[in-house]
Amino acid sequence: MTKVAIISIGNELLNGQTTDTNASWLAGRLFEMGIPTVGGWTVPDETGRIVQALKAACGLADIILVSGGLGPTDDDLTRQAVADHLGVELKFHPELLQQLEDFFAKRGKVMAETNRCQVYIPVGCDILDNPIGTAPGFCAARDDVLIAVMPGVPVEMKRMFNEQVVPRIQKNHTGPVVASGKVRCFGPGESDLAQKLGNLMDRSRNPLINCTCSCGEILLHIIAQAENREIAAAMVEDDKKMLFALLGDWIYGYDDQSLPQIVGDLLRKTGRTIATAESCTGGLIAKLLTDIPGSSDYMSAGWVTYSNDAKISQLGVPERLIMENGAVSEPVARAMASGAVQKSGADIGIGITGIAGPGGGTEEKPVGLVYIGVCLRGQCFVEECRFPATNRDFVRYRSALAALNIVRLKLGI
Amino acid sequence: MTKVAIISIGNELLNGQTTDTNASWLAGRLFEMGIPTVGGWTVPDETGRIVQALKAACGLADIILVSGGLGPTDDDLTRQAVADHLGVELKFHPELLQQLEDFFAKRGKVMAETNRCQVYIPVGCDILDNPIGTAPGFCAARDDVLIAVMPGVPVEMKRMFNEQVVPRIQKNHTGPVVASGKVRCFGPGESDLAQKLGNLMDRSRNPLINCTCSCGEILLHIIAQAENREIAAAMVEDDKKMLFALLGDWIYGYDDQSLPQIVGDLLRKTGRTIATAESCTGGLIAKLLTDIPGSSDYMSAGWVTYSNDAKISQLGVPERLIMENGAVSEPVARAMASGAVQKSGADIGIGITGIAGPGGGTEEKPVGLVYIGVCLRGQCFVEECRFPATNRDFVRYRSALAALNIVRLKLGI
Repeated sequence: MTKVAIISIGNELLNGQTTDTNASWLAGRLFEMGIPTVGGWTVPDETGRIVQALKAACGLADIILVSGGLGPTDDDLTRQAVADHLGVELKFHPELLQQLEDFFAKRGKVMAETNRCQVYIPVGCDILDNPIGTAPGFCAARDDVLIAVMPGVPVEMKRMFNEQVVPRIQKNHTGPVVASGKVRCFGPGESDLAQKLGNLMDRSRNPLINCTCSCGEILLHIIAQAENREIAAAMVEDDKKMLFALLGDWIYGYDDQSLPQIVGDLLRKTGRTIATAESCTGGLIAKLLTDIPGSSDYMSAGWVTYSNDAKISQLGVPERLIMENGAVSEPVARAMASGAVQKSGADIGIGITGIAGPGGGTEEKPVGLVYIGVCLRGQCFVEECRFPATNRDFVRYRSALAALNIVRLKLGI
Repeated sequence: MTKVAIISIGNELLNGQTTDTNASWLAGRLFEMGIPTVGGWTVPDETGRIVQALKAACGLADIILVSGGLGPTDDDLTRQAVADHLGVELKFHPELLQQLEDFFAKRGKVMAETNRCQVYIPVGCDILDNPIGTAPGFCAARDDVLIAVMPGVPVEMKRMFNEQVVPRIQKNHTGPVVASGKVRCFGPGESDLAQKLGNLMDRSRNPLINCTCSCGEILLHIIAQAENREIAAAMVEDDKKMLFALLGDWIYGYDDQSLPQIVGDLLRKTGRTIATAESCTGGLIAKLLTDIPGSSDYMSAGWVTYSNDAKISQLGVPERLIMENGAVSEPVARAMASGAVQKSGADIGIGITGIAGPGGGTEEKPVGLVYIGVCLRGQCFVEECRFPATNRDFVRYRSALAALNIVRLKLGI
């Protein structure tokens, strides 16, 4: 059975400057392909140590994924180390030099002499092109072990892996083929959801369904094994449909969709605009909505009304409401949402007021208490939420997602 | 010379579910103490593989930091593996069982029988208390090698390391003592700053000064070696003063201060309030300002005016200005900032308009072009910025920090 080992190379990974995100990204991609990662090594830019790690990795796995140490400076030693491990020389590739010179020329620069070392590749290796960086990668196949060497820059490594290494792995990979997909839920608690899923989460089921939670979002990861790719992919699609039938509007999206993106899509599809009036979230909801390119199509206006004065003067919240109920209250959330609609002319208004902490909580109104108002078609709804007072960032982010989820539900049906 | 090796244990690190942040955090802490990390291993929850990694690590380093695999379930095998490596048995600790039962009782729960395995510790090891979790750690000292075993949960690991492992390392650590500090700059380009620093960045200098850049911020890391802690700390303080004399208001803060926090402190100190009028940043500046607890003291109001209509109706930007110059222009940024001041009554107004991308750019007004207006004491300034069009998040975050930095400079003097 195919097994993978991952080697991450670079002094910056061993002095705390850089967290190695490449290794977990690669492990996750392989997991989705049904191939287990059996070990990871982090080694400095030292030839001897790299060779040592390659040797140890080859003893455990038949696919070795290496990243880092392909730059142009003296401490980039991965090329030499892999050549040493394979017992071959480095070979100069004039066609790569031309590509590299072109790469710099396109950017109006002249290649520095130091970059020349990047086009020396161990003899007998396939070259992996790097269309977005200076360091080409390479691939060695020997004794049924595949060694793929990629740059450390995450964006370059990911593209090279997806486009050039994955096809090679799939060619070598024997055993069942795997396909995967994600179902994204917002609304229920983890235990409510687990109860609904029942024995669908059995560890022996195929497809396997994994469940992880973060900030109110529940992510279901479907992993199907089958004799070929088409069957595995069809099993994932069937499970998505089955989960939709079971979980209904708890599901907001699939695969890599985000809640702000889904809300944006719904707004665009229904031709509606939105306005936000934020107290405790302080602009975060507007920020999340406008993270999405093209959000100017539906984002009408936003207010950050932290002070009572701003709530009164900018949104027209009656002073009396604040005096009688406090700024963190159901009527004020409602008045903020309806003020946002009236002042902006948007179709939908969000009004949000709460206590993000760490200070400002009382017994009656503790940290984590948040009122979310949503106005739509002349109707206003307010939801009282009591989030765990984990920390300020958590309460604010959880509140913002909850508000977007209410908009999704109101728009979706 | 003291050297460290780090072993991270857990299947979740090898299937992409969890990125190992413990290893880089530990490496960073050790780097600050002047102790190099020479290698890292990621291993699954398998006794044999853990023993193998311990053996390899002991061949390279004299301090071995292990995290993970101390939980109560069947796949938590680190205790047994360390005992195997040391050639000793596991020993039951009744006093730890009492602590664990108390831990659950305090939370209104009864300890499950499965947790009993957590109080079995290899014979001859010192116990490391875990006041915030169920898994105690432990420490073995043998043949001049120190092995510290900690839980994988980052918050528990960090506290245990800082409070109980660091003193043990310092006791064992021979050679010079190290102190470190950070100087945070915003404004200059990396090459301008490097030129000013000149030979202060020599790799042989003591204190050593390292430089890293991210999103316009330049972080200078000062690392001083001396015969004792007091002298090393004084060397860091001297360098901070020297850098302040050299770099002046390029420096916005020290150590772990953030730009929004520094701006908040300045606002509070000068008794001023602030209002934001955001187009391209879509609420991000307000979000950053209100990330800081207590920001209601100075955050007056914020507007997200994505559309021309909102700029006109909410901020009173003259329609003519937009028609004549376009929404992304110097006069509109100025009018937005002054509108924010007029509508909110705040002392300071920020107005920001630009092209965050990926779409919407033209030859004349490319993605990355941002105008930042700041009004203060009746005076309005506008800065034209042309940021690299790396991606939407980068342009927005870079713009927000640049706006906060202008406020800092206007307030600071």
